[in-house]
Amino acid sequence: MHDILPAGATIGILGGGQLGRMLSVAAARLGLTTHVYEPGSNAPAGEVAHAITTASYEDESALRAFAQSVDVVTYEFENVPTSALDLIESLVPIRPGREALRISQDRMTEKDFLTGLGLHVAPYAPVNDLVELEAALEMLGTPSILKTRRFGYDGKGQVRITAAEEAAGAIVEIAGVPAILEGFVDFSAEISVIAARGADGAVACYDPGENIHSEGILRQTCVPAALPTGLRTDAVLLAGRILNALDYVGVMGVELFVTSQGLLVNEIAPRVHNSGHWTQNGCVVDQFEQHIRAVAGWPLGNGKRHADVVMENLIGDDMERVPELAARSDAALHLYGKTETRPGRKMGHVNLVKPLG
Amino acid sequence: MHDILPAGATIGILGGGQLGRMLSVAAARLGLTTHVYEPGSNAPAGEVAHAITTASYEDESALRAFAQSVDVVTYEFENVPTSALDLIESLVPIRPGREALRISQDRMTEKDFLTGLGLHVAPYAPVNDLVELEAALEMLGTPSILKTRRFGYDGKGQVRITAAEEAAGAIVEIAGVPAILEGFVDFSAEISVIAARGADGAVACYDPGENIHSEGILRQTCVPAALPTGLRTDAVLLAGRILNALDYVGVMGVELFVTSQGLLVNEIAPRVHNSGHWTQNGCVVDQFEQHIRAVAGWPLGNGKRHADVVMENLIGDDMERVPELAARSDAALHLYGKTETRPGRKMGHVNLVKPLG
Repeated sequence: MHDILPAGATIGILGGGQLGRMLSVAAARLGLTTHVYEPGSNAPAGEVAHAITTASYEDESALRAFAQSVDVVTYEFENVPTSALDLIESLVPIRPGREALRISQDRMTEKDFLTGLGLHVAPYAPVNDLVELEAALEMLGTPSILKTRRFGYDGKGQVRITAAEEAAGAIVEIAGVPAILEGFVDFSAEISVIAARGADGAVACYDPGENIHSEGILRQTCVPAALPTGLRTDAVLLAGRILNALDYVGVMGVELFVTSQGLLVNEIAPRVHNSGHWTQNGCVVDQFEQHIRAVAGWPLGNGKRHADVVMENLIGDDMERVPELAARSDAALHLYGKTETRPGRKMGHVNLVKPLG
Repeated sequence: MHDILPAGATIGILGGGQLGRMLSVAAARLGLTTHVYEPGSNAPAGEVAHAITTASYEDESALRAFAQSVDVVTYEFENVPTSALDLIESLVPIRPGREALRISQDRMTEKDFLTGLGLHVAPYAPVNDLVELEAALEMLGTPSILKTRRFGYDGKGQVRITAAEEAAGAIVEIAGVPAILEGFVDFSAEISVIAARGADGAVACYDPGENIHSEGILRQTCVPAALPTGLRTDAVLLAGRILNALDYVGVMGVELFVTSQGLLVNEIAPRVHNSGHWTQNGCVVDQFEQHIRAVAGWPLGNGKRHADVVMENLIGDDMERVPELAARSDAALHLYGKTETRPGRKMGHVNLVKPLG
């Protein structure tokens, strides 16, 4: 690929959901085209991408044609099969790189990586069977959370354990797949740092946002987070440490717990992140353009915050609020064009904006 | 059509240039899809639209299929042939309506309409031949400008006349088509009001911007315009008068001359306008989303300005400035994905942003 992708160059995006959709729009704004690869039909990103391939991650000829049609490949989610990535990488660069994917695809590997960097995480132990779970519960106590090592998102693949006798049921619930047990963390808030690193090694972080979850799904992110200045600096420094250790190129979402002992890393996502959607109406360059800039070899843009923003996800029936929100003068709506509303399905989000000064 | 277009509904856009491209992106943000109709190949809007029809405005079956595939039709430029509009309108609503198009397609009709509303325009006279031009020059003097009544844009179809003996040459230069002569206006500045009117009759105007042209092409728009408060109010009121008179639905660009006698209307464009591109980085809801909101029957959004902005067009070789601009922290780039650079061709624009407060 060129060092700096010129107008008309094509970025391949693995995954055609709303993140791919907003990445496509950001690429278009910079004069770049996108080609989306998505196994499912009616992909939200397909509406705005120049091209879409609808094929499985096992379809080698489709993967090959996709890779040959683009200048660089990025992704909107981290669970792309390794075999697909191997084939693609033999033909075209993947940004962010494979190491970030390898680490974030497995909760155990991720925690080992983070602690290896000297960062703090919740106490954890590997769990491959009931015997190991019982030992882990002995060590970490309850309440604690059993999480599958792979393929978890939006609270899926997680079982909360409040007493040792729930161990057997928990193993059944996660179908006996490799897991980790995470000990209880007494946190006062969860915050996210949306961090970016350019191909030139420059690092830029957006202001941390404070997250509110319900039923395992992000409901709201508020910026600024209510956070002492010292922790704000800590958050940015530790995000930078993670990006540099991975020689990372692109945007990463870093979820942190605020505790009385400082910050713990909850998890990292090697992609644009739901908790960074506020940047669309709070910054000159939002997380989607920032990611595209990095992936395309451009310099990072200015992510300085010019507004206080509350981002609310519109999930399932929240879509009934759209007419009211559309009429609010502080509301910037972002809908994903999904025609079928389902409970728990992310249909859009709204940024409630209050310009600074 | 529905009163208020729901997610997944389709907006047809006549014209596939950069305005259609940015309209498509704004529609996608609201969960709407777009279908672009464009006679030329490699249309910039085609990259981001859900569908594109490449066919001439004389192709009745293509026009019919297009109209039948969408819920409402809008346009990115005003010179769509009447026959095409007639056919489309027999199948689906067109917004803004035909009256705005009829008036803005002909400079003479437009000036008669504006003066009929009690608004001021440059002195003008119809010119159908050399005899009429000589009479008009006698009345309006020199310097003055001969403009074709139809199909003028970006300074095309215009001849400046500095002495009466240039009359015959000017008629030849515009190929003898129906024209008007416009008398000299001593103006201190040209400003634009980007005005919007919703399907419910609500009117909203963005802050006026000050325009700088060169060789007939807009180079720069600055907000705020250096304008006394009284004239700012005048500008907004007269724009509202135009929109209401036309029962207009959508965004209109109104170009005004600032003179010692007050404001003169230079011309109106029944569409989003180059001088409104600053709104993309200066307002929560930009002119493109505002237009889509109106066309889709949504309430108008909040166009309050939260930043000072200088919008510069990137024309032809200005693209060489992109690497430098990409690295500037105050610059928001918007490129149109045109791979062929030509002198005078609009390739993109940059908003230089200074947040208020």
